[in-house]
Amino acid sequence: MTHANVNTFRDLCPALANKTYFNYGGQGPLPTPSLQAINASWQRIQELGPFTGHVWPFIEQETARLRQALAHLCGVSPHRIALTENVTSGCVLPLWGLPWQTGDVLLLSDCEHPGVVAACQELARREGLRIEWLPVLELCRNTPQAALDDAVLEALERALSPDTRLVALSHLLWNSGSVMPITAVAKRLQQHPKAPWLLVDAAQSMGSIPVEEAAAAADIYAFTGHKWCCGPEGLGGVALSQRLLEQAQPTLIGWRSLRHEASAGSSFHNDARRFEVATSCVPLCSGLATSLELLAQAGTPSERLAIIQARSLRLWQGLQAIQGVSTLLPDPPAAGLVSFTLGSTATAAVVAQLGAEGLWIRRLDDPDCLRACTHITTTEDEIDALLQALGAAG
Amino acid sequence: MTHANVNTFRDLCPALANKTYFNYGGQGPLPTPSLQAINASWQRIQELGPFTGHVWPFIEQETARLRQALAHLCGVSPHRIALTENVTSGCVLPLWGLPWQTGDVLLLSDCEHPGVVAACQELARREGLRIEWLPVLELCRNTPQAALDDAVLEALERALSPDTRLVALSHLLWNSGSVMPITAVAKRLQQHPKAPWLLVDAAQSMGSIPVEEAAAAADIYAFTGHKWCCGPEGLGGVALSQRLLEQAQPTLIGWRSLRHEASAGSSFHNDARRFEVATSCVPLCSGLATSLELLAQAGTPSERLAIIQARSLRLWQGLQAIQGVSTLLPDPPAAGLVSFTLGSTATAAVVAQLGAEGLWIRRLDDPDCLRACTHITTTEDEIDALLQALGAAG
Repeated sequence: MTHANVNTFRDLCPALANKTYFNYGGQGPLPTPSLQAINASWQRIQELGPFTGHVWPFIEQETARLRQALAHLCGVSPHRIALTENVTSGCVLPLWGLPWQTGDVLLLSDCEHPGVVAACQELARREGLRIEWLPVLELCRNTPQAALDDAVLEALERALSPDTRLVALSHLLWNSGSVMPITAVAKRLQQHPKAPWLLVDAAQSMGSIPVEEAAAAADIYAFTGHKWCCGPEGLGGVALSQRLLEQAQPTLIGWRSLRHEASAGSSFHNDARRFEVATSCVPLCSGLATSLELLAQAGTPSERLAIIQARSLRLWQGLQAIQGVSTLLPDPPAAGLVSFTLGSTATAAVVAQLGAEGLWIRRLDDPDCLRACTHITTTEDEIDALLQALGAAG
Repeated sequence: MTHANVNTFRDLCPALANKTYFNYGGQGPLPTPSLQAINASWQRIQELGPFTGHVWPFIEQETARLRQALAHLCGVSPHRIALTENVTSGCVLPLWGLPWQTGDVLLLSDCEHPGVVAACQELARREGLRIEWLPVLELCRNTPQAALDDAVLEALERALSPDTRLVALSHLLWNSGSVMPITAVAKRLQQHPKAPWLLVDAAQSMGSIPVEEAAAAADIYAFTGHKWCCGPEGLGGVALSQRLLEQAQPTLIGWRSLRHEASAGSSFHNDARRFEVATSCVPLCSGLATSLELLAQAGTPSERLAIIQARSLRLWQGLQAIQGVSTLLPDPPAAGLVSFTLGSTATAAVVAQLGAEGLWIRRLDDPDCLRACTHITTTEDEIDALLQALGAAG
């Protein structure tokens, strides 16, 4: 990795040219070469197809190239990766296909995204399951990162019951920005008599921190390409465990789930494709693959995380110095999400005021706070500009 | 409508410049202005966003514009349209949310797409439902189109039972190319004590025939933008009945299903958005909206169908004159799908041989046959070239 490559990556993103951007956790900027790759893919499909014997090898090549890149990042074989439209689909499609029994308990952390929570609640309603909660937010707020893994594992120990059949825990919490000990949790769950499934929302981790151990350890590790990976919106994926592939039935079945697409009587794919549905936008695969290549040129996941951490550290430290500001975490963040409150000032008003100045952060509902994200593209000048604006707003 | 506008539409499609194309039922060509609109949409999102207060009005405008255009075509209010990734999602997402009871019967026509059939079979397995079959293929093969509506309604009468809770019938059958009397079927189902749901796969009808009466009459009218509408792959929609919106729960729940996206405790949207899931590719909306506008410039749905019928008539009549060829239908097709067999010649070999000459048709498994589609872009020269090649291949 060179600093030059990081600067190059930034320069390739027109979204960053006219604003001071801290919403990578919402959506990342799309580099121009990725948009060009999307375009070129569409043109090639029109040239070869769109529905001809000549176009299938190209479509297979583009999806296989992406599946392989994602599998490499996740530390799993490509047959364990399903491509999905978004994180929610990646979480929920396999979830609905698991073999549930009335009375099974879904243990959800209290920092899961509302979409995943609502999906679990609906599943519980239909299948007669119970929802229980794993409290991690207060631990994040009060525990130094060095002690957080143990604290989370102790909380898990207290929350597990004989009926626990699934644990849902994000890898990088979208509200506090803390990293959860996914591999240790997976190991603990293996000792449980029911070996509960481990569902990991990887919306914030994929592309921002190394994920290969966690992704390989989880049963469902669902991510999107349009946040920290800086790919196009509308394409993500999920890494699935071998035991899940063997035990889960597809729910939203279409021709891509079937081994022989022309025949409903045929069985489903044995691999993760059983959770793929039907026609999706292949040019997006070319775009995401290009974004992943550009990120790789800027450094390995560990090297990039070091840059992200350096940026979030600068922001976190600067926030400590502003009157009335409290960061959610007692320590510098483990990755690029920095959440904080701003004394008595209403968070929504602050977001609007900063936006009017061309600085973009977001607010979260639960807990009510502000969140600014730093990526490898974030400059020190941007951080200082944000700190100055927050100081004035406070 | 002018003939000039039809020619213009064809000239805007690079896919049609270097091949003789008859696979519109598989995927339609993407006009260059639609690809340009997709690109412009992405650039605008990067300029305004991608995740800022400035970008939301643009995203709302692009999705609302498409939702409105689709609602207009379907003859329903925009609140009854959900945007989906593909036809399968449009069929299956609402299907899984309906209130089923053990023993309910799903009555499927024997011409449904394998994806929909497999999804119904899995639903039946999980919910203890029974699948029964509505035989229409043999009717299509043996009944003149003028008598087909009555024949289908009689078959429906024989197939309905007190336990029938859903009927699945495509509007334009993907294999035989026959149009089904959807509004009459809907009326009949209203008289049934259980008022069975009517699920209509509109993959082949949307963009090729007028759909507004059928779409408004069905409970689930699911279509895609990438076939006869000539939009980008990965975007479709579904028109939902008011009673379905009131009685069905969403299955694949994400932030877009929720009235307040930040809170899982909030209720679902009252309108069709409860079946939308999470982040999807907004630029595709700009592309499909552009394709629909270009098609509208070429004529109303009825005017375009007249052109499509004139083309399929020429092809159908030409096929009658070729030794060994049998068309599936005894009459000229009601729309643009022309299915036929070619004596003893293996269908797969014919597809490959024609492909080598730059002529693209496809084969179907059930019944084993060849299918060539004519759209408004099809020229008489193309049809004559196909007929000549088939004559040589027979």
